[in-house]
Amino acid sequence: MNRRRKIYEGKAKILFEGPEPGTLVQYFKDDTTAGDGARHEVIDGKGVLNNRISEFVFTKLNGLGIPTHFIRRINMREQLIKEVEIIPLEIIVRNFAAGSLVKRLGLEPGTQLPRSIIEFCYKDDALHDPMVSEEHITAFGWATPAELDDIMSLAIRVNDFLTGLFMGVGIQLVDFKIECGRLYEGDLMRIVLADEISPDSCRLWDVKTRAKMDKDRFRENLGGLIESYRDVAQRLGILVETENALTTGPRLVQ
Amino acid sequence: MNRRRKIYEGKAKILFEGPEPGTLVQYFKDDTTAGDGARHEVIDGKGVLNNRISEFVFTKLNGLGIPTHFIRRINMREQLIKEVEIIPLEIIVRNFAAGSLVKRLGLEPGTQLPRSIIEFCYKDDALHDPMVSEEHITAFGWATPAELDDIMSLAIRVNDFLTGLFMGVGIQLVDFKIECGRLYEGDLMRIVLADEISPDSCRLWDVKTRAKMDKDRFRENLGGLIESYRDVAQRLGILVETENALTTGPRLVQ
Repeated sequence: MNRRRKIYEGKAKILFEGPEPGTLVQYFKDDTTAGDGARHEVIDGKGVLNNRISEFVFTKLNGLGIPTHFIRRINMREQLIKEVEIIPLEIIVRNFAAGSLVKRLGLEPGTQLPRSIIEFCYKDDALHDPMVSEEHITAFGWATPAELDDIMSLAIRVNDFLTGLFMGVGIQLVDFKIECGRLYEGDLMRIVLADEISPDSCRLWDVKTRAKMDKDRFRENLGGLIESYRDVAQRLGILVETENALTTGPRLVQ
Repeated sequence: MNRRRKIYEGKAKILFEGPEPGTLVQYFKDDTTAGDGARHEVIDGKGVLNNRISEFVFTKLNGLGIPTHFIRRINMREQLIKEVEIIPLEIIVRNFAAGSLVKRLGLEPGTQLPRSIIEFCYKDDALHDPMVSEEHITAFGWATPAELDDIMSLAIRVNDFLTGLFMGVGIQLVDFKIECGRLYEGDLMRIVLADEISPDSCRLWDVKTRAKMDKDRFRENLGGLIESYRDVAQRLGILVETENALTTGPRLVQ
């Protein structure tokens, strides 16, 4: 099989042309960045773990009837996904105060919010993904009001599921980021969950120790990132195969 | 008459206890600040002009049936207003790109927006009045969803009127900021326009010369602030009395 055509390369993933029209291959890199890419490291095995954790979550979400782009995992680093038109927003769901919200509103980190809060950032590295409101989104046509309603409903369902899932394994879901896309099927269009859900895109705190088990370990130079991601995967009951991959080194099976 | 009790002192105005329950006296100072108060100057006569311009605008808005806190002007620097419970938001209506929106979204200053955009900032000097969305506002209870609907409807009506008013005198309304409050009358509560509308709170550009006729003259050290404010007042047909006040110096009539 010839090397597939690269469609898009982001900071942590690459999208390749898929085997059939309407499909893509999503490849998970080991690249880890912070501060809009100002800091960059390659952390061996991170992509393998995120691929497995994201597969696990998206499979469960599909099972719940929450529409996603996910079809199936292909190998250690790749997933087969449906091609969607990505909406240029980061959708952030916050349950406890952390990150930029702590600074914006002067809150104590870890404070439980009065209710879950959904935020939107416009995906633009040059602008540092600025926070925007529904007004900006609909005025500039990044999404219609009806699409925003679908996105928010989807985000709430994902939050409900993830909160429960992580609670069951002793992890507090502080916040997370998702992306959505438009999936065209015949004359129909619907909003589906895209991108990934992994410790790269969630804030996860151990319920007992309050230890951070997510990308903040990199952002805050705490070390032990891979160990934490593996802990998350193991608590979720994701296979031992992951550990083999880390031992033998990541391979790209084609 | 004894010196009235001061209720609140802001950067550009003071609120005193009013002559009757449920009323306040709003006093316009000459103090001019920028950068959350980091820069501060006293510009002789600014308060007098803002009092007159704001009186003019609020009187017209009352006449249109848009509810405001304004009762009547008392003297050169003071207005009698209804006491309201201020909602801790700056409500910004933008028609053309300027100020923080230019930076946030990387727009060319003066670009016409696809439609008017309403933004909210949480009034907190220590936090530098951070932009917030409807989600933050309703989650933290700063306003209810129903109140936000009323605020946005009111903001749109004010924008419609002001756009027309200024257009008629050769001035482009780029954006403006308002504040709203809850007015309690018996068992009834309604959202009313509060604070002021003046060249301190609007971006006003001369249609022909593109000259700035607002507080940006101070923010950007362009000079000629009082001359511009007086030009705005004169174009609106506001009385010559203003000029006398500037000649004889501002007086506080009690």
